[in-house]
Amino acid sequence: MSNKNYAPLTEESAITLAKELAYFTAEEHVTCEEIGDGNLNLVFRIKGFERSIIIKQALPYAKVVGESWPLSLKRAEIESHALRIQGQYVPHLVPKVFHEDHDLAVTIMEDLSHLTIARKGLIDGEDYPLLSTHIGTFLAHTLFFTSDFGLHASKKRELDSQFCNPDLCDITEGLVFTDPFGPYETNNFEPALQEDVEQIWNNVSLKERVAQLKYSFLTHKEALLHGDLHTGSIFASETETKVIDPEFACFGPIGFDIGQFFANLLLQAISREEERQAVLFTHIETTWNVFSDTFSALWHQHSVDAYTTLDTWRIAVLANIFREAVGFAGCEIIRRTIGLAHVADLDGIEDETRRIHAKKQALKLGTALLLHDVNTVDAQFYDRIFKTIKNEVNA
Amino acid sequence: MSNKNYAPLTEESAITLAKELAYFTAEEHVTCEEIGDGNLNLVFRIKGFERSIIIKQALPYAKVVGESWPLSLKRAEIESHALRIQGQYVPHLVPKVFHEDHDLAVTIMEDLSHLTIARKGLIDGEDYPLLSTHIGTFLAHTLFFTSDFGLHASKKRELDSQFCNPDLCDITEGLVFTDPFGPYETNNFEPALQEDVEQIWNNVSLKERVAQLKYSFLTHKEALLHGDLHTGSIFASETETKVIDPEFACFGPIGFDIGQFFANLLLQAISREEERQAVLFTHIETTWNVFSDTFSALWHQHSVDAYTTLDTWRIAVLANIFREAVGFAGCEIIRRTIGLAHVADLDGIEDETRRIHAKKQALKLGTALLLHDVNTVDAQFYDRIFKTIKNEVNA
Repeated sequence: MSNKNYAPLTEESAITLAKELAYFTAEEHVTCEEIGDGNLNLVFRIKGFERSIIIKQALPYAKVVGESWPLSLKRAEIESHALRIQGQYVPHLVPKVFHEDHDLAVTIMEDLSHLTIARKGLIDGEDYPLLSTHIGTFLAHTLFFTSDFGLHASKKRELDSQFCNPDLCDITEGLVFTDPFGPYETNNFEPALQEDVEQIWNNVSLKERVAQLKYSFLTHKEALLHGDLHTGSIFASETETKVIDPEFACFGPIGFDIGQFFANLLLQAISREEERQAVLFTHIETTWNVFSDTFSALWHQHSVDAYTTLDTWRIAVLANIFREAVGFAGCEIIRRTIGLAHVADLDGIEDETRRIHAKKQALKLGTALLLHDVNTVDAQFYDRIFKTIKNEVNA
Repeated sequence: MSNKNYAPLTEESAITLAKELAYFTAEEHVTCEEIGDGNLNLVFRIKGFERSIIIKQALPYAKVVGESWPLSLKRAEIESHALRIQGQYVPHLVPKVFHEDHDLAVTIMEDLSHLTIARKGLIDGEDYPLLSTHIGTFLAHTLFFTSDFGLHASKKRELDSQFCNPDLCDITEGLVFTDPFGPYETNNFEPALQEDVEQIWNNVSLKERVAQLKYSFLTHKEALLHGDLHTGSIFASETETKVIDPEFACFGPIGFDIGQFFANLLLQAISREEERQAVLFTHIETTWNVFSDTFSALWHQHSVDAYTTLDTWRIAVLANIFREAVGFAGCEIIRRTIGLAHVADLDGIEDETRRIHAKKQALKLGTALLLHDVNTVDAQFYDRIFKTIKNEVNA
């Protein structure tokens, strides 16, 4: 803590702060660039002679479609706290946090500019062969060790109460689970989709499934989620993966992070020609398999709950995580197509016919995932759903 | 707050405190009696000329079977906070809170000595004709208005974080969900039950069901629970019902309070001759029907979530609450028979043959409730389970 009064940093005051904190000497020539998208945060990259750091500062409002609404600065604390916890379990998969200042809503961390945002890279045709292995590992470790399987219940209750994040959860509750499924003002879709959108709004079974999933997000405090694990929250290269921006972190259902990641890979798949989709389907299956195997290994080696000796219970827990992940993926695919916050994977398709076709495909896939039978857990459970995914992307 | 240092009150210092706070004049002749069971709290009844009050003070430890373990004094704050919240919705069904002192871990409240603890009254043959209507009303209001159906999600998240109650939840997690289902030291059962107990410990399906229910208690933050709603936490008369002692309050699955109450009525039923059981079965069905009808009415009139317009969703939510209540009742019945904390309904049966028979019956009933098919939700769903209950009590 600094006892400083909050004010948004400028490039100059960011440099002053970095020098005060001795990341650079007073005389050192440094450059500073604001590289954030400016919606929720300022992000300054400060480069000196030998090192380079990131100063991220929360803004007291969110800019969304020209409007602005107030947002608690506490989310900077949530973000740095989440990064530190994730860093305990998967230090190689998150940025290093150097310093926090809660008064300034500032986190100073490792500069990862040598990496590319995965969404951009995937759009540009990168394959990121290790992406799914890394994300599966990230998910398994961060979710297992903050769940009641890996953390003693009392400690988990205390940690949960430290991640009360109502402002940002409110955004997720509205923009992911509510608004896209009815005629809300925040929605934003191309007129050519009107009929497909109304089919979703009129589908009672689909809406009941979304109601269940929303209720799970609201009430099921299974583990500390990243809370916003789309491909825009991941830096990647051929060899490295770093998960950033956990300001939406909160306790919630384990399947949520997994489903968001699946959905964003699928939105990318839909944007591609069929012959280039296979790598993404493989990423989805690998993410699940690495998550499931690693989570199981941690369960066998590090579990703290008495009932983890029952292997049928582990199998049931994993099936339920997958069941929910599939549903959460359905919500995410639909909301990224017709809700407030879109993805460049689809919006970036310049040819209108192709773009509208892709968006209709996304709505079909999202619907199929939400209405899929996820209650019959037999030997074909996982394969059946992976198969549906592939078929629906090109149906 | 008083800025006083914590020290356990004596009858004399309790009187001094009551006079300092002007519940009585300095000259008034008052009598003071410590009426608590002394396990977790001191409870002083102070009577003056015109009024009578209760001073309840948390002790920094729990006395259980001669041992003592440390317990956070924060539970006094949890209890008075829960009483105030419940008092907003059902003021006629909880004691009035007059004053709180968090430093002293003290709550001063209405004296309800004109009523009898329901467990004692039921053992003594009282019927309490309004008990189930009142408890159904209590459950519906307190659980609806603290759930995401009746309270805006952000406010509910904040309230949840104020009810982080790890010490007492730890007791429930151990004594209700873990220890009775394996060879733990805290268990306490008569040797004649050994075979029945081992059958439970060796029943993998039963243990997986208990694992699910425990996980639900650990993770499903649906509403603010009383957390310990047995018949010993209820004062009753022919016309009045007051729910006391919510120091175990925490957010958890809605079915938990309902299941605990069902279980304690069933333990009383098992202790009786068959011809006197009907009133208790009626109490169970009435509790559910009043809860379900009132919860539905509140849902229709006061819901805050978009999806509450789907009536199929309301029906699914209620079925899930009942499904879990039945399971929680099974856990409670078993743990009150073989775990650490017993009930006078069974332990008080003097004739050994009858007592052992009743306890074996309890273990059978608890097992039946845990293994009952609760997934087939058809038109006979509720009736089928109420019927099983009646049959199993006398099987």
